[in-house]
Amino acid sequence: MDRIDIYDTTLRDGTQAEDINLTTEDKIRVAAKLDELGVAYIEGGWPGSNPTDKRFFKEIRNYDLKTAKVAAFGSTHNPKATPDADPNLKALLAAETEVLTIFGKCWGIHVTEALRTTLERNLEIIAGSLAYLRPHARELFFDAEHFFDGFKADPDYALAALATAHKAGADALVLCDTNGGTLPHDLGEMVRAVRAALPGAVLGIHPHNDSGLAVANALEGVRQGATHVQGTVNGYGERCGNANLCAIIPNLELKFGRSCLPEGRLPLLAPTATFVAEVANLAPFSRQPYVGDSAFAHKGGVHVSAVARNPLTYEHIDPALVGNRRRVLLSDLSGQSNILFKAREYGFELDKNDPFVLELLTTIKERESKGYEYSAAEASYELLLNRVLGRARSYFTPIHYRILDDQAFTRDELTTEATVMIKVGGSLKHTASTGRGPVNALDRALRKALRGFYPRISEMRLLDFKVRVLTSANREESGTASYVRVLCQSGDQNRRWTTVGVSHNVIEASWQALEDSINYKLFIDDKDKLTRALRG
Amino acid sequence: MDRIDIYDTTLRDGTQAEDINLTTEDKIRVAAKLDELGVAYIEGGWPGSNPTDKRFFKEIRNYDLKTAKVAAFGSTHNPKATPDADPNLKALLAAETEVLTIFGKCWGIHVTEALRTTLERNLEIIAGSLAYLRPHARELFFDAEHFFDGFKADPDYALAALATAHKAGADALVLCDTNGGTLPHDLGEMVRAVRAALPGAVLGIHPHNDSGLAVANALEGVRQGATHVQGTVNGYGERCGNANLCAIIPNLELKFGRSCLPEGRLPLLAPTATFVAEVANLAPFSRQPYVGDSAFAHKGGVHVSAVARNPLTYEHIDPALVGNRRRVLLSDLSGQSNILFKAREYGFELDKNDPFVLELLTTIKERESKGYEYSAAEASYELLLNRVLGRARSYFTPIHYRILDDQAFTRDELTTEATVMIKVGGSLKHTASTGRGPVNALDRALRKALRGFYPRISEMRLLDFKVRVLTSANREESGTASYVRVLCQSGDQNRRWTTVGVSHNVIEASWQALEDSINYKLFIDDKDKLTRALRG
Repeated sequence: MDRIDIYDTTLRDGTQAEDINLTTEDKIRVAAKLDELGVAYIEGGWPGSNPTDKRFFKEIRNYDLKTAKVAAFGSTHNPKATPDADPNLKALLAAETEVLTIFGKCWGIHVTEALRTTLERNLEIIAGSLAYLRPHARELFFDAEHFFDGFKADPDYALAALATAHKAGADALVLCDTNGGTLPHDLGEMVRAVRAALPGAVLGIHPHNDSGLAVANALEGVRQGATHVQGTVNGYGERCGNANLCAIIPNLELKFGRSCLPEGRLPLLAPTATFVAEVANLAPFSRQPYVGDSAFAHKGGVHVSAVARNPLTYEHIDPALVGNRRRVLLSDLSGQSNILFKAREYGFELDKNDPFVLELLTTIKERESKGYEYSAAEASYELLLNRVLGRARSYFTPIHYRILDDQAFTRDELTTEATVMIKVGGSLKHTASTGRGPVNALDRALRKALRGFYPRISEMRLLDFKVRVLTSANREESGTASYVRVLCQSGDQNRRWTTVGVSHNVIEASWQALEDSINYKLFIDDKDKLTRALRG
Repeated sequence: MDRIDIYDTTLRDGTQAEDINLTTEDKIRVAAKLDELGVAYIEGGWPGSNPTDKRFFKEIRNYDLKTAKVAAFGSTHNPKATPDADPNLKALLAAETEVLTIFGKCWGIHVTEALRTTLERNLEIIAGSLAYLRPHARELFFDAEHFFDGFKADPDYALAALATAHKAGADALVLCDTNGGTLPHDLGEMVRAVRAALPGAVLGIHPHNDSGLAVANALEGVRQGATHVQGTVNGYGERCGNANLCAIIPNLELKFGRSCLPEGRLPLLAPTATFVAEVANLAPFSRQPYVGDSAFAHKGGVHVSAVARNPLTYEHIDPALVGNRRRVLLSDLSGQSNILFKAREYGFELDKNDPFVLELLTTIKERESKGYEYSAAEASYELLLNRVLGRARSYFTPIHYRILDDQAFTRDELTTEATVMIKVGGSLKHTASTGRGPVNALDRALRKALRGFYPRISEMRLLDFKVRVLTSANREESGTASYVRVLCQSGDQNRRWTTVGVSHNVIEASWQALEDSINYKLFIDDKDKLTRALRG
């Protein structure tokens, strides 16, 4: 199968989306997941533009990525500078990545109105920037910004910009539909014209979705000879977003017969989509092609029975191919095989007739229907699994907590107090603490209560904390009475873990996540100790 | 301009979506709105399948639709019945619509496995059903279900089914990509084959979005000669949804130069999209092409200044053409020019030397440094702007609130109580309420306190609520002691608005967002009243 290089720009162009803000830590987690999925390139950010991206490139060096190469992104040098005196190009080199990508202008109005220079000078800038970077990069890509709009306005100039980049040593010329306004058949013709003009060049495609055509445009680019496709997970990105890799990859692999990911990785697509949505703290889009929760959901009646007889009747592909699943609405579906699959990951070889498997299935279904979501909270899942299988002991029993949160506007005095009562073995412990907000007060009171029994909990700290309101079809439950899901990330000197809580009440949901987090710390330390002891 | 007939099936195929349930009343409201927009046909439902749809067809007769014709939908008759004894066809006639649409099978596996009859009998069924309906319908359409999958499996049979429908009097043959798996270039070829086989037939196209290609497929259908396009508002529909008319219509009108709506109606597109989302009780999809809230949103920096100089640089069309608007996100409100630009949006022509502009700048900078983020909370921004400029009155003064949140694990008893004290003019009000969680309790207590003074706050409801932890470089502030930002979306019968709150304490941040939300409702109502009074 002819290979297509997938260049993921979720961490750079994706974060241009209005509602996405990722920390360096978030970015590292996403990068690790993308590497697992097996994309060829991960564009990590624009090191010249902000400290988060700069830190990302420093920290990612500590990770041993298996498949993906990390790329840093930047612009051609400032018209008033020389390449070697340009801070943006310097920041690119300082990122110390194998791959460098710079974008340059191909459209007259952008050269004169955005860059404010002449058409000739712009070609010099492209040539100079690429030539300066060339010796420092294993691979060097040129993003031809607004290529298609530029071509429509002045094909000769747009092609001249490409030819300049090609001559200056760019390993791929990436044709960008930056404004997302190009139609597939027009785009196809223009890619053909580029191929004719630059027969030796490797071509890439970078569409945006402003006309609802980004996926179609990416596919049309490939049909006309592009072998490098840029896009983002879930189509995140500025305005209407970038081309959605979660639709492009399966279309290319399953329908074009092109290889995008290492053998066997396609089933990681749906879990990756969910994971990235969780990290970005955005509700997954249920109607999303291939990976959405509704993508293979069949409402009762004719469809369901036809699908039961022959899935082909109402499904264009087998959902398992992309790690998704068929959902028959209004009837409960056994996810037994998923559970067995997951248990194996944690070292449990379970038989499907094992009575514990049934209990696990029932428990998970019940919790999922309440809104627990374990894809980004594996610690809670591992704990649940071990509890049901009787492998996790109980470290403490909560008896009671109480929060008093008091705001006196006239004195501008906000106080929060938590009291917590727990039982450890036969011993009852009752503590209180103030805090900066109810969850912090609860966290402090709980740790205070436990410290005497389990001193090692002082090794752990809470790193991040996310709250999401779950939508509900029930009108009565919208707004402030909705269910909320809390994700809580903790870490100690050895590892990081994430736990989940769900409730109508944000404090109760936070308590659940805190409780799981502390329990996980104690559980995993014990497990490590046992493993070391067994090893000898 | 060559005309394309838009056939809207939001009320029929759209309601197959997992999360959409419309009452008859909802359907009537949507139909009236679609007529205002000016689509050619409104498919109201499947009268043979449920009482809601039956009632819809009865009630819609009382409305004087100006542009749209109402269509009723059903299947070909049961293989075991004759047309005149088929309850489904009878129900279609009982709908008493000008337009009737029936779907029939074109794909072998569907004939044998879903319909459970022979290929020959299926052709008889198509011919018999259409011939029976023909005298009763002003216009009669044939939906060729699974046409493209059928054609791929057996082109002769798929074409025979179409030819049968054509001969039996169908006014249009609608080629359906029912499973949504067809690629645009394959679809184009098949439409060409149909045109060659049935040169006299009017062709329609009905794509689904399972491959993320429904919009592209609809456009390709039109390019190859289809003049009738079926889809739904916002792309609602089963699984990944139907073809999204909110992208298809502007693509056809603005880029293909085809006319879909009566002159001057295209600017109703974005309001229609929002209206339908509201009636369906679904959060609008902000990245939706053309009509989404983010579709023309620009994040600070390079893009904003380029767009201000020439909108073409980062916009494929003028947003006003589809009734949308450009939004300059307030994430980097670094400078005066952004503030002046934004103020102009709200009707204030400010001079940069105006002392209030300096105050506004100082206030916004200070609030942004605390973590307030106005890009997604324009109502808070508008309120702030009007307050600084002395145009918003104070509706109430908060004096005090208190939250008591109490979890007794042994009795599994979780209670939350809020007390609130506010001043309205000279009057002090002290109320209390329980709630599902602290924010809900606070919301209820606050509304209770205000209801007597401002009865119209009962018109508004809280629609969504988001909490985000703000990262901080300061390690002491990570985890549960971080700042949190709350975004609160509210709405009434006329509009939706979003407000923001920031604090260490999630309850305090929620209070701020709630307070702004209620103030905004009162402020905007007063402003509307004033505008109306001035007009007339």
